[in-house]
Amino acid sequence: MKLGILGYGRLARGVEIQAREKEEFEIRAVFTRRKPSEVKTLFAPVYHEREAESFRDRLDCLLICRGSATDLPTDTPRFSKIFDTVDSYDTHSDIEKHKERVDRAVRGRNGLSIISVGWDPGLLSLARLYFTAFTGGVVNSFWGEGVSQGHTQAISSIEGVKYAVQYTVPREDALIRAANGESLSDSERHKRVCYVVAKENTPSVRAMIERKIVGMENYFAPYETEVIFLDEEQLLSEHSSFYHRGRVICSASTGLNKENSIRCSLDVQIGSNPELTASVMLASARALYRMKKEGRVGAYTLFDLPPKYLMPQDVSPVDLL
Amino acid sequence: MKLGILGYGRLARGVEIQAREKEEFEIRAVFTRRKPSEVKTLFAPVYHEREAESFRDRLDCLLICRGSATDLPTDTPRFSKIFDTVDSYDTHSDIEKHKERVDRAVRGRNGLSIISVGWDPGLLSLARLYFTAFTGGVVNSFWGEGVSQGHTQAISSIEGVKYAVQYTVPREDALIRAANGESLSDSERHKRVCYVVAKENTPSVRAMIERKIVGMENYFAPYETEVIFLDEEQLLSEHSSFYHRGRVICSASTGLNKENSIRCSLDVQIGSNPELTASVMLASARALYRMKKEGRVGAYTLFDLPPKYLMPQDVSPVDLL
Repeated sequence: MKLGILGYGRLARGVEIQAREKEEFEIRAVFTRRKPSEVKTLFAPVYHEREAESFRDRLDCLLICRGSATDLPTDTPRFSKIFDTVDSYDTHSDIEKHKERVDRAVRGRNGLSIISVGWDPGLLSLARLYFTAFTGGVVNSFWGEGVSQGHTQAISSIEGVKYAVQYTVPREDALIRAANGESLSDSERHKRVCYVVAKENTPSVRAMIERKIVGMENYFAPYETEVIFLDEEQLLSEHSSFYHRGRVICSASTGLNKENSIRCSLDVQIGSNPELTASVMLASARALYRMKKEGRVGAYTLFDLPPKYLMPQDVSPVDLL
Repeated sequence: MKLGILGYGRLARGVEIQAREKEEFEIRAVFTRRKPSEVKTLFAPVYHEREAESFRDRLDCLLICRGSATDLPTDTPRFSKIFDTVDSYDTHSDIEKHKERVDRAVRGRNGLSIISVGWDPGLLSLARLYFTAFTGGVVNSFWGEGVSQGHTQAISSIEGVKYAVQYTVPREDALIRAANGESLSDSERHKRVCYVVAKENTPSVRAMIERKIVGMENYFAPYETEVIFLDEEQLLSEHSSFYHRGRVICSASTGLNKENSIRCSLDVQIGSNPELTASVMLASARALYRMKKEGRVGAYTLFDLPPKYLMPQDVSPVDLL
């Protein structure tokens, strides 16, 4: 498969590293909006994104490695008019709208796109669906312990904050309640731990920052929130890892009495969040390639495609049944 | 959906109980090879299987609730010539052959069948596939602690054995080795614990039985095997539960170094093994119904169908993404 990559950050680097290890993939181009000479890839040639059009019909798939907040809502539809695409759009509440936009873009050229792949949405979404379909049980998702980019940015934007890192942490009591079949809200399931470097490290500034964090609507107000102040050196040395964790816990009763209960759980522990997303994007590129050969068109999520399409060529699905 | 059930044991009863709780399903007939008047269902009408032909075009799906060892290899193809079918064929090494047989049978009438659904093959198979496709990692499956019917029967057939129950038990050391990415054989992953009631409870008979069990090729010889003798009353009171457990553990590295590692695990704890299988069969009947409307024909496994088809009607897949 001849692949292109749009954008070059940690996610794109993860794609490049993993594609290099697999014979089935070849990275033909990285497209950037920066000056190409300033983008240092491992081996892939870099072009300005203005040149993407000249690669039409020369790539099997473009992996869109940009952010969900502002880039993907426009970049995925835009580049889907030129290439078949895969993205990792992760704003859960807007996935359906995003899918419609991308669907319109690809259908114009009878193309294909697989959107919102990664670990969540992605692997955890699949667990939620199969657990729900197979057991009819109560499903709860837990994220962390791991850094939330959105919450980190929300803290960083507070006046007086120099740096911040926010961890989403599952509550121990909630893990037990979920296993017992209670349906819990997001703030019942998680607490938020904030590490903050204040520009001016005085008691009154710290108190002001803490008050602003814990009072922030949606982000922190409904959650148990802990704010810890530390110095810059400590923040960089102790809080710059990309590990994350996701769990989906389901509890159900399929029988006449409570004894006949089912507990399903998926637990994904991730050393490097962007590298797992990269790996799922490459598997999705494989699926796209196979579906293309079958003449399928339109925008798909992982819910819409037969799992066998995701398999590496050298493994027979039947051996895993 | 108008459903039929072939066979009436624990699995069929699980289907009947769960279908009753869901408005989308209606059980129209149970077909048996016994005398219908001797089969006591909860509410479903019972017919001899000879009468199945007269239900042609009157059922959306026939759930085949018989055993994999001798019934399903002939019953699923045979009844797939009359109805769209779902079965739980679980002889892993023969699933491909079974699929071919069923495929030929259904294609004759442009029908559909979904085979080999349940928890394994089924839910655990899906975890093996997605983990492999998304991470390229090493995947190990663990079964138990729970009763294995095949091994229980193997012991029961030994001369001098009155009753037996065999538990498959994951080895603690193997769970750790799997999490660390070692690929392990079945006998490295599991030990076998056998509870036996001897017809004649003398030391020499017990020694003879134990020798025959631990020496049995494939079944016990390569495994750490423990044989415990007990009396009939104790066996019935302590070892007649249907709980089981299945785990799929995957360990992978998606990055440049071992630190960037991924660990995925699925853990399914099952109060009643046949009731979970029943529940997955009903979800598969839903998928079959939807695929039928799209004009699909042939034999499918869960690897071949988009997960969204399995969802209950009243849940929107997009809410789980």
